[in-house]
Amino acid sequence: MRWSDMDANGHINNVPFLTYLEEARIDMLQDLIAQAKAADGVASAGILVANTAIEYKLPLVHRIAPVPIAVWITKIGGAYFDLAYEVADDPDTVYARATSRMVTYDFVSGFPRRLRPHEKEYLQRYLEP
Amino acid sequence: MRWSDMDANGHINNVPFLTYLEEARIDMLQDLIAQAKAADGVASAGILVANTAIEYKLPLVHRIAPVPIAVWITKIGGAYFDLAYEVADDPDTVYARATSRMVTYDFVSGFPRRLRPHEKEYLQRYLEP
Amino acid sequence: MRWSDMDANGHINNVPFLTYLEEARIDMLQDLIAQAKAADGVASAGILVANTAIEYKLPLVHRIAPVPIAVWITKIGGAYFDLAYEVADDPDTVYARATSRMVTYDFVSGFPRRLRPHEKEYLQRYLEP
Amino acid sequence: MRWSDMDANGHINNVPFLTYLEEARIDMLQDLIAQAKAADGVASAGILVANTAIEYKLPLVHRIAPVPIAVWITKIGGAYFDLAYEVADDPDTVYARATSRMVTYDFVSGFPRRLRPHEKEYLQRYLEP
Repeated sequence: MRWSDMDANGHINNVPFLTYLEEARIDMLQDLIAQAKAADGVASAGILVANTAIEYKLPLVHRIAPVPIAVWITKIGGAYFDLAYEVADDPDTVYARATSRMVTYDFVSGFPRRLRPHEKEYLQRYLEP
Repeated sequence: MRWSDMDANGHINNVPFLTYLEEARIDMLQDLIAQAKAADGVASAGILVANTAIEYKLPLVHRIAPVPIAVWITKIGGAYFDLAYEVADDPDTVYARATSRMVTYDFVSGFPRRLRPHEKEYLQRYLEP
Repeated sequence: MRWSDMDANGHINNVPFLTYLEEARIDMLQDLIAQAKAADGVASAGILVANTAIEYKLPLVHRIAPVPIAVWITKIGGAYFDLAYEVADDPDTVYARATSRMVTYDFVSGFPRRLRPHEKEYLQRYLEP
Repeated sequence: MRWSDMDANGHINNVPFLTYLEEARIDMLQDLIAQAKAADGVASAGILVANTAIEYKLPLVHRIAPVPIAVWITKIGGAYFDLAYEVADDPDTVYARATSRMVTYDFVSGFPRRLRPHEKEYLQRYLEP
């Protein structure tokens, strides 16, 4: 969290929550992203956010300690995968719950692309339907 | 749009879209917010985002001209109202569609509160179920 | 200005001011940027921020109306140019004053580059030493 | 760093650097801020940024590991103190150097205020003129 993520209401604004989700997602996918980058700079193995739904449960105030975010995969499709997130200190202190659909995309051809076998294998590790 | 809203993929990142929705919403509600502010600094007549769902349809690239955002109210409840948004240049060029539920909240008591009659009246103007 | 640019002190945070400067600068340089983009995607005719100094004079609060920013060029060098900015409603209501040095850079070679004649000509229009 | 701090040039944009400085500064001042908050919600013991000057030395690319920021105090005045910052992996890999003047401010009276003895004592610990 950054202090400036708080808005004039004195709470973390609703928007930076999506940045927190993005950071958690990138942490989970970092080895996959690193492989794609090494191959051709992500260009042909891109992954895009198709949608996000977030429910805000409790107000969150800036503090030095990071806020824990659980992120896991709920479904692996042919050319997409679904994520679920929970921003929470503990099961009784849930700040937000969210889901996103990620689609695999080829920036070179400009078209969606199918998940590659090594990508599916990587994602399986985080699958909790 | 701000140039820095683009990420390393060269498109507007998914997160600033929520800021665009927030700006469109504040534009629509500005007179209501101004009244509350004049009364007691928004404290007892707060409005919070309870949830947002957004679907990204087309990539958006920074340009000087602003991107049009349509925002309207789809439902007015006892202590909440629902919004729909469309970020689009024209019906064939839709960048994103979204919905949010806004809840009315009393920052003084720390509890949800019922929509006041003058608030309902104001919101009716934008109601398109 | 965006509402979320305000921090928990209820004023525009010091950081978004630099985004305002960036937007003003891009507005001024937009034709130059468009030409470079048309030629080779900015790659060989890049412009980078080498330094910025900003002095905050008065607190700024979010409002729907944009805050005026004057931006002009104070010096044109061989491989750089200097900018001055004033964020102000009028001469008695100055929120911030700033300066930056911009350096011309070739992203293809990875080295600084000299200002091209048509760039100098463009910049001359905004020169007020 | 956040992945979205990178702009369309594929480097961390110049603006988020100021957020990094803010975070480093808040880390250093956190006990002082906590004391002020406990007393009266920071209102009478506010600290504001009066100016910042930053020099960008090397481009910075997003990575999971945080970038180290050294921050120290170079001068303690009657109603202000000066900070210096270095964003660097090591002495040969300096991304940016910066300075800011912080002024002490009473949000209740709306006027600058003198540094209190316990504040000066706290700041002394970080003084390296």
